[in-house]
Amino acid sequence: MPAASAKDYNPRPLGPPPSSLAQPLEPVMPDHAISPIRSQDYPEWYQQVVRAADLAEQSPVRGCMVIKPHGYAIWERMQTILDRMFKATGHQNAYFPLFIPLSYLEQEAKHVEGFAKECAVVTHHRLELGPDGKLIPTGKLEEPLVVRPTSETIIGAMYAKWVQSWRDLPVLINQWANVVRWEMRPRLFLRTAEFLWQEGHTAHATRDEAVEETLRMLDVYATFAERDLAMPVLKGPKPSGERFPGAVDTFSIEAMMQDGKALQAGTSHFLGQNFAQAQGIKFSNSSGVEEFCWTTSWGVSTRLIGAVIMTHSDDDGLCLPPRIAPTQVMLLPIHRTDEERTAVLACCRQLEAELSNARFGDEPIRVRIDARDMRGGDKVWQHVKQGVPLRVEIGPRDLAAGAVSVSRRDRGPRERAAMPLGQFVAEAAGLLDDIQRGMFDRAKAFRDQHSVRLGSTAEVVEFFERPAEKGSPVQGGFAHVHVADDPAVTAMFDPLKVTVRCIPLEGNDDPGTCIVTGRPVTGRSVLARSY
Amino acid sequence: MPAASAKDYNPRPLGPPPSSLAQPLEPVMPDHAISPIRSQDYPEWYQQVVRAADLAEQSPVRGCMVIKPHGYAIWERMQTILDRMFKATGHQNAYFPLFIPLSYLEQEAKHVEGFAKECAVVTHHRLELGPDGKLIPTGKLEEPLVVRPTSETIIGAMYAKWVQSWRDLPVLINQWANVVRWEMRPRLFLRTAEFLWQEGHTAHATRDEAVEETLRMLDVYATFAERDLAMPVLKGPKPSGERFPGAVDTFSIEAMMQDGKALQAGTSHFLGQNFAQAQGIKFSNSSGVEEFCWTTSWGVSTRLIGAVIMTHSDDDGLCLPPRIAPTQVMLLPIHRTDEERTAVLACCRQLEAELSNARFGDEPIRVRIDARDMRGGDKVWQHVKQGVPLRVEIGPRDLAAGAVSVSRRDRGPRERAAMPLGQFVAEAAGLLDDIQRGMFDRAKAFRDQHSVRLGSTAEVVEFFERPAEKGSPVQGGFAHVHVADDPAVTAMFDPLKVTVRCIPLEGNDDPGTCIVTGRPVTGRSVLARSY
Repeated sequence: MPAASAKDYNPRPLGPPPSSLAQPLEPVMPDHAISPIRSQDYPEWYQQVVRAADLAEQSPVRGCMVIKPHGYAIWERMQTILDRMFKATGHQNAYFPLFIPLSYLEQEAKHVEGFAKECAVVTHHRLELGPDGKLIPTGKLEEPLVVRPTSETIIGAMYAKWVQSWRDLPVLINQWANVVRWEMRPRLFLRTAEFLWQEGHTAHATRDEAVEETLRMLDVYATFAERDLAMPVLKGPKPSGERFPGAVDTFSIEAMMQDGKALQAGTSHFLGQNFAQAQGIKFSNSSGVEEFCWTTSWGVSTRLIGAVIMTHSDDDGLCLPPRIAPTQVMLLPIHRTDEERTAVLACCRQLEAELSNARFGDEPIRVRIDARDMRGGDKVWQHVKQGVPLRVEIGPRDLAAGAVSVSRRDRGPRERAAMPLGQFVAEAAGLLDDIQRGMFDRAKAFRDQHSVRLGSTAEVVEFFERPAEKGSPVQGGFAHVHVADDPAVTAMFDPLKVTVRCIPLEGNDDPGTCIVTGRPVTGRSVLARSY
Repeated sequence: MPAASAKDYNPRPLGPPPSSLAQPLEPVMPDHAISPIRSQDYPEWYQQVVRAADLAEQSPVRGCMVIKPHGYAIWERMQTILDRMFKATGHQNAYFPLFIPLSYLEQEAKHVEGFAKECAVVTHHRLELGPDGKLIPTGKLEEPLVVRPTSETIIGAMYAKWVQSWRDLPVLINQWANVVRWEMRPRLFLRTAEFLWQEGHTAHATRDEAVEETLRMLDVYATFAERDLAMPVLKGPKPSGERFPGAVDTFSIEAMMQDGKALQAGTSHFLGQNFAQAQGIKFSNSSGVEEFCWTTSWGVSTRLIGAVIMTHSDDDGLCLPPRIAPTQVMLLPIHRTDEERTAVLACCRQLEAELSNARFGDEPIRVRIDARDMRGGDKVWQHVKQGVPLRVEIGPRDLAAGAVSVSRRDRGPRERAAMPLGQFVAEAAGLLDDIQRGMFDRAKAFRDQHSVRLGSTAEVVEFFERPAEKGSPVQGGFAHVHVADDPAVTAMFDPLKVTVRCIPLEGNDDPGTCIVTGRPVTGRSVLARSY
């Protein structure tokens, strides 16, 4: 048997040995690839989807995950798209230290209060081998260092040096980095002690400019979520109790997961002059008078991968929106004999070349050949579970007929459509587009179906306490209600584990009276349980 | 005056206020932009080049640097090219934890010995505010965690879980990450407590395959250094005393800086079964017998930016090889009146569009317009110091003549060639190619000029002790000599601060007798002082 070309997709093989190669692709599939299914145990279903798609796993270090190649490739897609959007809005990347001196954290009172309880602290800078062969920390630091939970303080310290005059403004910088927030109940992607993210930090001469920047980046996040992740989001300010520690205003995008819970998928903070005052970020204005800057910060993290999984996946595993799928089209050669293999692989390579020359969105279609020698059914099943948008099987009969057999991940795993080869090449981008739109539409319809407008606390209690319908993992959803930004509101819904997620900025010109305090409010807030 | 388009290049302005705008571009330049110049004080010249190019600066955290936007953009270029090369050689990216439990470090004896003295140690996971408003570390960890100085142990622990059978091999993974090695004498890019790097970690079924991988990645680094960084390198094994802690063999690429010192620019390690045995990375072979894997690791870091600076820059500042220059062509509009500005900017935009459609290498030419309102001379000077390969000035007279005024960074800062606009567009890629090749050739000629073959210890001593020639920062260079891999050799050259950098793999079929021990050796080693 001729060796597969080095160009072929050949990751670590899973499953049966090569002797069982070239079985016909009529897999005996179980009812569902994931067990339990969503309606049985949604949190466990999530863990099993992550596992079946080989995205990540817990590491031996408490709360820290290992992001495996398929998971990381999704993150790379997200990075590529977001990075382009940040640069198109005038930002540059830079890199600031991992460590923050304790004295910096102390500068902004609310900030330190918000992060002190979950900081990894470096206290020593060397190790010595003890008599028992165990390592002992030595070289105690004069001032302990915190592993950054976020970088406002260390970046602010640099801006205070860099900014002198109004001509130095605005400063528009983003950083791609790892951060650490000690986490007692970690969940892969959703809550991990270390996670990857980007954090934008900007400084401006005026309040208006900083507010504009805050909202611009919120829009960037919303566009990315809806266009690229096919994930509809509500965007708006958080109530005061849910603000970033030290912010004047925090805005978020909130998505609905398939159990009806909200997931905060990105935040953009208007920091006012709080950090500028704490850190001395000052400039002389055009009249030569010294003023404090107005700053913002904004971030999204590897949590987005958790959001995508829970928005789109089904009981057969991961479902990836084509725009962020590392591989959009997986070509699956089928053959029994060496001659068949040669002919089928040649056809696959031709198809790979043609598809790579076609474009979906702004980029070449991402296509791979899975030429591994393993049972065809297992191979198909793996790509189903890994969420590849289009699978294309090509066997000797297809070859003879000049056709391919196409399966969409957004349809049942057994559905296949025969298609003339040329037609497939011509229509592949259109199919991907159709899948992308369909995923968004389905997620949007789901959110609409589980969103209600409620008018009293009794209705809210009933909505969130009503048991899930049979066969559905959804309990509650998004309740759009009139509530004031008030501790009484928080206290009222706390027993339900329900919080105000945000006050949507759009489609919310709907004044009313707070159902808890009776105070007038200008629009509805969204109440939900959340991740 | 009409506002510049948002698309225009508009970083934080430096220097004089806008009132002095539209001065003619006849700057009164000092003799050299950098002071001191190379021959006066090479280490200080380096710091001043970094500063003048606005690449990085020391942060308030001991030994940690801030990589500023221009420096980070160069790193992004390096990442893009290397990442493509890693993927083309079959590797996938993944991400492993920042923290390593002490007990993991203890597993490989030489490894822990090599890194124990420079580890940042996390001992606590929360902070509490003391009565004096100062933060106190609390929540002591049962087992302290080390901030990764390199990831062999934590990645090996995962591979031990992932690899079961010969069918799971090879594992070919790379990680882009930050690492920390406590550094007492930091120098920007060259030695910093935290730095950015990539680390490849692979596991194989056979020794041969692992050796082949080690050498393949060494070649990838050498190709990248010579083709993209225009930096000639020698590649070969290090002597045993200079190996990576825990490695069987360490190979490096070594470049010569302009003071004649060597800089190790990348390393590739054959780890044998050392880590596999320490960590239990085992597989059952095709006969069902359990064997230990053979592993490799390889890395390059932000140190490469230091290498590029010291290989190519001159007394006017940074000189960037076009392939890694964030901006390859900087368009500089010149105008006095609003009408002139409108016409000149329109021409710049047209030129920008045409150049963006042209390609240099595999990519569109990276072109920007610097439309900032500042004195033309200062603007030109800034791009000289920042190393932009081609500067193009366009003023009303050029416009009338249908010409542009082109300056190459590899020529004197006052040199300019008038060129018909169309010709420039047609020849831009060729000019960039010429600059790229010229930079390599010049660096290679410099290395050759300062490389010698020596036959006795007396000659070696004389070579490295000879004072620098007047006007040159070079003391010593590369001495190709016959020496054995022996402590006596190390001891002999230690007083000169000279070490064996590597034993070149190529052009080294030159057996002889060790000038220190008298033992036969198969080829010459390279002796040099080093960074």
